[in-house]
Amino acid sequence: DIVAAAKGLFAPGPLAGRRVLLTAGPTREYLDPVRFISNPSTGKMGLAVAQAARSLGAHVTVVLGPVGTVERAGLDVVDVVGAEDMAREVLARVEDVDLFIASAAVSDWKPQTRAAHKVKKTEGPETLTLVRTPDVLAEASRRVAGRERRPALVGFAAETQRVVEYAREKLQRKGLDAIVANDVTAPGAGFGVDTNQVTVLTRDGGEHALSGTKREVARALLDLVRGYLPAQPQ
Amino acid sequence: DIVAAAKGLFAPGPLAGRRVLLTAGPTREYLDPVRFISNPSTGKMGLAVAQAARSLGAHVTVVLGPVGTVERAGLDVVDVVGAEDMAREVLARVEDVDLFIASAAVSDWKPQTRAAHKVKKTEGPETLTLVRTPDVLAEASRRVAGRERRPALVGFAAETQRVVEYAREKLQRKGLDAIVANDVTAPGAGFGVDTNQVTVLTRDGGEHALSGTKREVARALLDLVRGYLPAQPQ
Repeated sequence: DIVAAAKGLFAPGPLAGRRVLLTAGPTREYLDPVRFISNPSTGKMGLAVAQAARSLGAHVTVVLGPVGTVERAGLDVVDVVGAEDMAREVLARVEDVDLFIASAAVSDWKPQTRAAHKVKKTEGPETLTLVRTPDVLAEASRRVAGRERRPALVGFAAETQRVVEYAREKLQRKGLDAIVANDVTAPGAGFGVDTNQVTVLTRDGGEHALSGTKREVARALLDLVRGYLPAQPQ
Repeated sequence: DIVAAAKGLFAPGPLAGRRVLLTAGPTREYLDPVRFISNPSTGKMGLAVAQAARSLGAHVTVVLGPVGTVERAGLDVVDVVGAEDMAREVLARVEDVDLFIASAAVSDWKPQTRAAHKVKKTEGPETLTLVRTPDVLAEASRRVAGRERRPALVGFAAETQRVVEYAREKLQRKGLDAIVANDVTAPGAGFGVDTNQVTVLTRDGGEHALSGTKREVARALLDLVRGYLPAQPQ
């Protein structure tokens, strides 16, 4: 039948037949055509999770902020620039997936206005008014709340202090199944490096320390969150 | 003698024995440990000029903003993050070179203060006070002004309108020998792409349109500015 035929398109593995949506990379919020607010995310951790999910048999869509040249083989990649683009692309897809992992480092603020041309330098100080961007993960969580087949929801919390405390609060406030708490100031962790050490908090109160290459951490993370996926339709 | 021996370390070519200093890439101006103001420069044009200068026999030092993984073979690379770091590294070297090419897209402003920890999100708008960063090229030009063996000085002007007019004004104000005027909104030009089309203005009033791959543009630019290098010591 058609369902079986569709399943046949997926590789075998514990995530065979599963659809995974993932955000990765930074966002850029432009104040004029050549200047923006951003962050140092390179997308490495998120892309490691995407590749791990694919190798376990899932169909993976990555909504990817600007990260330069990265390995896209086997992934459906949707390129975006700003937080608003990212929110739109996620909300268009999150109802149809089994797992949503929000690993992107979304800018929390954007300039209130964007100048049409490069702003010329002036001497004195300037003030830039910043307004909040959409909270992609919170909006996605609201969109699927109460659904019979709600995707598992996994967030990331990049912090520089009180990492686990802030992450636990975020997990509860956003209605997540798990959150990956990341002290981005720790050596061998965070932005741009190939290794990571994180604490995964789950909604049942679990707390799991993971460390290793980003690939190893990615695989261990997927093992931890698999139990939160909705039942597969028979 | 020692001079001849030192010259032997350089490859033969029209820039043999010449020292070139070059800036490339963006700068990042952090407002807290994980957020910054920057621009989309990938350093491709500057690194193309650096490699072209090297292939013509020069010894090339690149003061490089954060650009991820790039080809560094044969170049002396000094990695920097912010405009102040870039200015310091340039001023420490510019008196000793024959040619300084400022291709970096240096942030013109930086946040007045940098928070020690990640600033937590709040609801309402925020205002960010921005102050001017050092003008790396203008400071370098002042540093060598009036010297008997003054390096040739080449700037870049990334503009979105009135490109040649703004660039000519910048050439004169900063005391340059040449400036590369770049309409970063033109298709196949500017940030991140492999081709470029620019207008090189020289201090004698010349105006030269160059286009092609960044490598071809780099080579043509070096041909244009070679005439401004100081006489080589005998």
